[in-house]
Amino acid sequence: MSLLIKNGRIITASEDFFGDILCEEEVIAQIAPHIDAGKNIEVIDASGKYVFPGFIDPHVHIYLPFMGTYAKDTYETASRAALVGGTTTLIEMCCPSRSEDPLESYELWLSRAAESGCDYTFHMGVSRFDDQTEGKLREIVNRGIASFKIFLAYKGALGINDEELFRTLALAKQLGVIVTAHCENETLVAQLQARLLSEGKTGPEWQNDSRPPHVEAEGVHHLMTFAEMTGAHVYCVHTSCREALQAVQEAQLRGVHAWVESVIPHFVLDKSYTEKPDFEGAKYVMSPPLRDETQHDALWAALRSRLISTVGTDHAPFDFIGQKDMGRDDFSKIPNGIPSVQDRVNILYTHGVCKGRIDLNTFVDAASTQAARLFGMYPRKGTIQVGSDADLVIYDPNYRGTLSVENQEMAVDYNAFEGWEIEGRPSAVTVRGKVQVRDGKFVGELGHGQLLTRKPTHF
Amino acid sequence: MSLLIKNGRIITASEDFFGDILCEEEVIAQIAPHIDAGKNIEVIDASGKYVFPGFIDPHVHIYLPFMGTYAKDTYETASRAALVGGTTTLIEMCCPSRSEDPLESYELWLSRAAESGCDYTFHMGVSRFDDQTEGKLREIVNRGIASFKIFLAYKGALGINDEELFRTLALAKQLGVIVTAHCENETLVAQLQARLLSEGKTGPEWQNDSRPPHVEAEGVHHLMTFAEMTGAHVYCVHTSCREALQAVQEAQLRGVHAWVESVIPHFVLDKSYTEKPDFEGAKYVMSPPLRDETQHDALWAALRSRLISTVGTDHAPFDFIGQKDMGRDDFSKIPNGIPSVQDRVNILYTHGVCKGRIDLNTFVDAASTQAARLFGMYPRKGTIQVGSDADLVIYDPNYRGTLSVENQEMAVDYNAFEGWEIEGRPSAVTVRGKVQVRDGKFVGELGHGQLLTRKPTHF
Amino acid sequence: MSLLIKNGRIITASEDFFGDILCEEEVIAQIAPHIDAGKNIEVIDASGKYVFPGFIDPHVHIYLPFMGTYAKDTYETASRAALVGGTTTLIEMCCPSRSEDPLESYELWLSRAAESGCDYTFHMGVSRFDDQTEGKLREIVNRGIASFKIFLAYKGALGINDEELFRTLALAKQLGVIVTAHCENETLVAQLQARLLSEGKTGPEWQNDSRPPHVEAEGVHHLMTFAEMTGAHVYCVHTSCREALQAVQEAQLRGVHAWVESVIPHFVLDKSYTEKPDFEGAKYVMSPPLRDETQHDALWAALRSRLISTVGTDHAPFDFIGQKDMGRDDFSKIPNGIPSVQDRVNILYTHGVCKGRIDLNTFVDAASTQAARLFGMYPRKGTIQVGSDADLVIYDPNYRGTLSVENQEMAVDYNAFEGWEIEGRPSAVTVRGKVQVRDGKFVGELGHGQLLTRKPTHF
Amino acid sequence: MSLLIKNGRIITASEDFFGDILCEEEVIAQIAPHIDAGKNIEVIDASGKYVFPGFIDPHVHIYLPFMGTYAKDTYETASRAALVGGTTTLIEMCCPSRSEDPLESYELWLSRAAESGCDYTFHMGVSRFDDQTEGKLREIVNRGIASFKIFLAYKGALGINDEELFRTLALAKQLGVIVTAHCENETLVAQLQARLLSEGKTGPEWQNDSRPPHVEAEGVHHLMTFAEMTGAHVYCVHTSCREALQAVQEAQLRGVHAWVESVIPHFVLDKSYTEKPDFEGAKYVMSPPLRDETQHDALWAALRSRLISTVGTDHAPFDFIGQKDMGRDDFSKIPNGIPSVQDRVNILYTHGVCKGRIDLNTFVDAASTQAARLFGMYPRKGTIQVGSDADLVIYDPNYRGTLSVENQEMAVDYNAFEGWEIEGRPSAVTVRGKVQVRDGKFVGELGHGQLLTRKPTHF
Repeated sequence: MSLLIKNGRIITASEDFFGDILCEEEVIAQIAPHIDAGKNIEVIDASGKYVFPGFIDPHVHIYLPFMGTYAKDTYETASRAALVGGTTTLIEMCCPSRSEDPLESYELWLSRAAESGCDYTFHMGVSRFDDQTEGKLREIVNRGIASFKIFLAYKGALGINDEELFRTLALAKQLGVIVTAHCENETLVAQLQARLLSEGKTGPEWQNDSRPPHVEAEGVHHLMTFAEMTGAHVYCVHTSCREALQAVQEAQLRGVHAWVESVIPHFVLDKSYTEKPDFEGAKYVMSPPLRDETQHDALWAALRSRLISTVGTDHAPFDFIGQKDMGRDDFSKIPNGIPSVQDRVNILYTHGVCKGRIDLNTFVDAASTQAARLFGMYPRKGTIQVGSDADLVIYDPNYRGTLSVENQEMAVDYNAFEGWEIEGRPSAVTVRGKVQVRDGKFVGELGHGQLLTRKPTHF
Repeated sequence: MSLLIKNGRIITASEDFFGDILCEEEVIAQIAPHIDAGKNIEVIDASGKYVFPGFIDPHVHIYLPFMGTYAKDTYETASRAALVGGTTTLIEMCCPSRSEDPLESYELWLSRAAESGCDYTFHMGVSRFDDQTEGKLREIVNRGIASFKIFLAYKGALGINDEELFRTLALAKQLGVIVTAHCENETLVAQLQARLLSEGKTGPEWQNDSRPPHVEAEGVHHLMTFAEMTGAHVYCVHTSCREALQAVQEAQLRGVHAWVESVIPHFVLDKSYTEKPDFEGAKYVMSPPLRDETQHDALWAALRSRLISTVGTDHAPFDFIGQKDMGRDDFSKIPNGIPSVQDRVNILYTHGVCKGRIDLNTFVDAASTQAARLFGMYPRKGTIQVGSDADLVIYDPNYRGTLSVENQEMAVDYNAFEGWEIEGRPSAVTVRGKVQVRDGKFVGELGHGQLLTRKPTHF
Repeated sequence: MSLLIKNGRIITASEDFFGDILCEEEVIAQIAPHIDAGKNIEVIDASGKYVFPGFIDPHVHIYLPFMGTYAKDTYETASRAALVGGTTTLIEMCCPSRSEDPLESYELWLSRAAESGCDYTFHMGVSRFDDQTEGKLREIVNRGIASFKIFLAYKGALGINDEELFRTLALAKQLGVIVTAHCENETLVAQLQARLLSEGKTGPEWQNDSRPPHVEAEGVHHLMTFAEMTGAHVYCVHTSCREALQAVQEAQLRGVHAWVESVIPHFVLDKSYTEKPDFEGAKYVMSPPLRDETQHDALWAALRSRLISTVGTDHAPFDFIGQKDMGRDDFSKIPNGIPSVQDRVNILYTHGVCKGRIDLNTFVDAASTQAARLFGMYPRKGTIQVGSDADLVIYDPNYRGTLSVENQEMAVDYNAFEGWEIEGRPSAVTVRGKVQVRDGKFVGELGHGQLLTRKPTHF
Repeated sequence: MSLLIKNGRIITASEDFFGDILCEEEVIAQIAPHIDAGKNIEVIDASGKYVFPGFIDPHVHIYLPFMGTYAKDTYETASRAALVGGTTTLIEMCCPSRSEDPLESYELWLSRAAESGCDYTFHMGVSRFDDQTEGKLREIVNRGIASFKIFLAYKGALGINDEELFRTLALAKQLGVIVTAHCENETLVAQLQARLLSEGKTGPEWQNDSRPPHVEAEGVHHLMTFAEMTGAHVYCVHTSCREALQAVQEAQLRGVHAWVESVIPHFVLDKSYTEKPDFEGAKYVMSPPLRDETQHDALWAALRSRLISTVGTDHAPFDFIGQKDMGRDDFSKIPNGIPSVQDRVNILYTHGVCKGRIDLNTFVDAASTQAARLFGMYPRKGTIQVGSDADLVIYDPNYRGTLSVENQEMAVDYNAFEGWEIEGRPSAVTVRGKVQVRDGKFVGELGHGQLLTRKPTHF
């Protein structure tokens, strides 16, 4: 059955107009001022609403082992949460440890996504690089995974050494694959953690001191130099501070192909949240950590000037009880992450667009289009044009509501934004023409999501 | 009569798809994979071609008195040249001297555009700011001119002093008007010119030494500080060097609303051109001057990272014989400008897109969309969407040709790119649905162009 | 009569040893481990004490008209205060207004110094530059005044315009004269003051907002560019913030001959002092203003790394009652200055040396030697070597005392550091071999001070 | 026997006066305008000459195994060369490999210095850091070696990893020991070398491409961050480029205790020397490599502004025949180093002082005093004051000569500055009062040199 969305204000990264959109056979078939609904066509009235391209979260974790437990979301819960929040495509990190086989890991991660309600793909984690892994990475790229993820942090676990870094980037350059990177110097983090703990500083409020801005900037600077020397295209994930942004600016101006992601918590939360009593600060532990609130202005400015290309989440759904509290006596054992796959779009709209910090086109660009472009899904995803997947968000700017664990789809036992008001929400959401959300509720079909295979574009 | 453009590859700042475009009553009426041509519909076959939104040159001079003479183009010649080159909208600077009345000047400039073949609007030059001019500027803004132009250079002529600068920016902030600025420190230029001339350094090859990069960066830094203190939105025209770009980067990261224009000559020409024998170097005199070619990489990098928002021309059509040669004994008397309104798009396509420095979307964004957005013409101009003006460029990437004074529409006696090969050109160009260029030739109607009135958006 | 200082720990900018110093006929005649006191030789026992070269305050105001009143110190009081505080040489600014004749002004300023108890010289203020003033400046330089002082601030009063700036610097370069400069953009200050006042923000706590760090950095950047283009040697007075320091760093690395002064209040006071109740904040109004205390670390770091060459005072002795309170309804009318000529050395010793921020040699270098070197008095002043003037400070590190208006020589009705403890003080002070201070008290002779004529060295 | 040096112009880092110096029992006993020569006092007439403190080379290699051979100098030849060139103190790197015992290595290096004609001490190389080495390093510090040397370069050989770096710096901070560091990213060097060689780029002219400026700046940035996090005091050796200098400037301003050394070849030689035909370029291979000559201005500017504290040599005396030519087919196998311990002072004087780039005090400061201060030898060394070692250089500014392998003491088969003219040389040189050089010739005693034990000062 076809779907006709009528009378919406259509917003893409570079357009803004009123019109109707006809979806047929999973794609956008027609865009015109007025399209007549024939028979067998479902009509959604978008009067008074925006129509955005489906949003893309370029940085989520769903299947994620941690110290004998697992992050709480499955694709069932995470995709429901994503969709209700307007996100129609997830890019999860496939995250093998150093000792695991990349190809087997990829297949494992892939298998867990079968029940997804939204589309998805993966950044292939490279936590080891030797001659054997190279062949497997080539195979994974051949299967349509056109981005790598590396960690300069997490010493001894996921982090790679400099030789592996060089070789990964050199391979990526050769294959046209973009490399996303968690940039913090792992040794400094480990040593600062050890020092703080030895001084009895064990609570979550020490997270920022254990990985201060210059430790992140050091990681970014390091990546920039390696990118310059290899020619690889790189993407700094969850960038949190002006010191790191400056390192990217300098590199870009001398020709390094570098892009920046930040994540929604860094724009609106600050380190004072980690000081909440009764260990509640642990809910706000992530890496890089929440910063001094003076960093917020720099992030919004960088988003506006497009130095920050994308806004993701680094969604990592660990419960407070049973998981976050594993670090009650040692903040370094608190699993990282502030679950926000459901709330990203609404918070960015409320605190970005409604407060005049960014305009609607920038909002779409940062939350959808740039991720599609950078990760090889464009123009299938990330925009509204004839032929693109009919992933659409009918967004109601008149909705008012409150974020809460009570009304969330995310399978965690808290909401980091508990009680925050939002000034808009997705009213209806489609994935390849199928209505998965109506009236803000998931009404769709799990398993409708597809793997998005992608061709390398970063030559 | 309606117009149907079929089978083109449609490229906007954020889209890329194949489809048909139906133009009716001056605007785009429909975009769809296949639109049937009814009767009374002219069809242009765009198979194998790109369809771009009409390009916008945000920085041209047409009516321009200089030392008793006038720049050679009129709107007849300039708009023909623009259209043949794919530019469908010109933003000319209205350029009163300190002693001239702003409103009368605006009317004078406006009157000269009547015969334009393409659409046009103006940046209102502010070369004086007192209580009287303020009222007149408000009136001009009310008439739909939503951008100012100021000079930090050209001491005693067009340049304004710091108090005028502050007041202009404060008014602009209040009115939501963006301020475009020529950023070079006027006193340093004047003094360095005097010093060079006193040393017998009179030829055009001294132009760069008379206004070196740090003199431009000084102007940019100055503007950034004033913008920070007033909150005004500012736009640096014809930025030529990394020193100036760094000043903008730093300011953006601390929240200054600043954008950057560069112009096509700065990307592809360098100061060695000013050293051409037989005074031919004078053809390449502009301000800021052509730089050392090591600056090119910085400009392309900044264009790619979108630090440079727009690529214009600073088109200023002075003849070599009779005008440029007024400075034969004194380079400071050579009228500034490298005529390029006709060639901008083709050079940017050839040296940017074809050489892999920028992609097609960035090309459109820089040469069309950003100018429309920044100067209040979007989405009427700058994109291809239903309801937008049917300004379209059907661009043939298979065309090969050579730039030359022999085949140009610009009314000047030389072409700065004489003999350069181009790898594409506009095959057909429409302005509000009317075909003004066919097969690369102007076939249209002069006087078809309209004044574009604009509402302020920079609050 | 000769003077023998025995058993002191002698500290210069680069030396540290125990020895005796014999002073004869105003100069240092001999330095040796042990010198026998013959007859007719007065002996001062410096056991347990430091012997420093006489300190130099490179930035004071004594004769200073302000809105119909005058700063309260005369050379009698100021030189007594200086000497008691260990300062044996003052460099006062000769400060003509735009309409005053430079030569006459110089003579006026000079005449007022006749009763000085310490040596002195002048920075010649250039508040106007035209062909007539040039000749007079040359004459003043011929008379031994080898430094100029200019203001980029104080619009319409002392400030010079860009052309005057260029010409002043060009003349200075030609003559080998260093140019000291107050770097704040005058127009921004004037406009921000007007804006704050119009908003009813009239108290001294608005001083920082009326001239924030980037207004100072703008001034410094401006000066750096002009210095680069003229080749002149420049010196930024009373630098207060990291933004300004960065501008100097960048310039130095590209070859600009630039030096930095800061003043003692900026190292130890912050803007919260201007918020003191009952208008007491006015005591802390100076320009550039006291900053956020996070700036202190940058200043100490820059002092340690020798980016900051000198620490002066900008001593400007205005009473709280009758002068500072002229600005009770308008902070912009509060006369600028925090009197500290008496306390500079002791505060720098207490907060710098005793707190481990700088070592003894750096202390001497910053408070004495660099001023002598930069301003053409070295090695007559600024060090302890045979042949140098016998200006010596026998400093008692075991003294403990409290700063207070009660025990000060400065002729003002308050002390900005009231109640602060110091951890050392000059026990005895000599000027050209004459003991002017004993046991911390002035015991000397007014009128003993001499004008120091200086030869230009900045070629 | 005593020694009296009469009528010299005595120059220290902060003094400049005429006088006589009496040396007794190895130290300076008296400095005075006129000292009478008694009996048993040898007199050297320094009329028309400078008297400088003995110069210190803070960075030399003498005993240095390389691929089965050894650097050619011994302490006999190196100290003769040093002394003839005015250098009276050498700081050699004690350079154990990862597998060697630090204490045994120290003793080995120490034993080889027994025949030195000048004084000497060592930077203790740390090429491994584990619990065992820590104890041995503490013992070495106890024995009077107050500085460490680490390599961020030379992967797999001398280079340490990040954990070792952190631990070394943390120990140094605890002990008050300064850490000198060779800052280049070892992995990038190794990979770039491999890439160049695989492309057939095997000649010495590829040295710069194998370790470009940003590879050095990366190392410096890395060190700065680690120094910031540990509080350790660090010293970047042989800094070659503005990119690296900027990284230090930024760090200093945020409070990092960092100092910079450069070496004489980087001020006067550029990468074009490595392009000399017949493999002669190999004579100019060092690391970091000779750079583009545009870097020279930055180095001189940084020396003048004292960002560069010291000028050393990185003297590494490998023969062209038999050693440098081991890399005839592979530039990465050319032993690093440009022998210059003999020529450093004369070149710095000729190209620095005589060309007006630095003044005499800065010359002494950079070539002597700062090394003494930073490495705990001050005021025994590095200045001319009563009680200091009588290490004196009577320098003849009227001498004119030519550098050549023909007249050098260094035991290598070439001189990198062959044929260069110098405008001054040490006429006489004393070490602790003993005349080791007369009329520019070594006339002294080998074995006169002593080990200088030093106390840590960097707390």
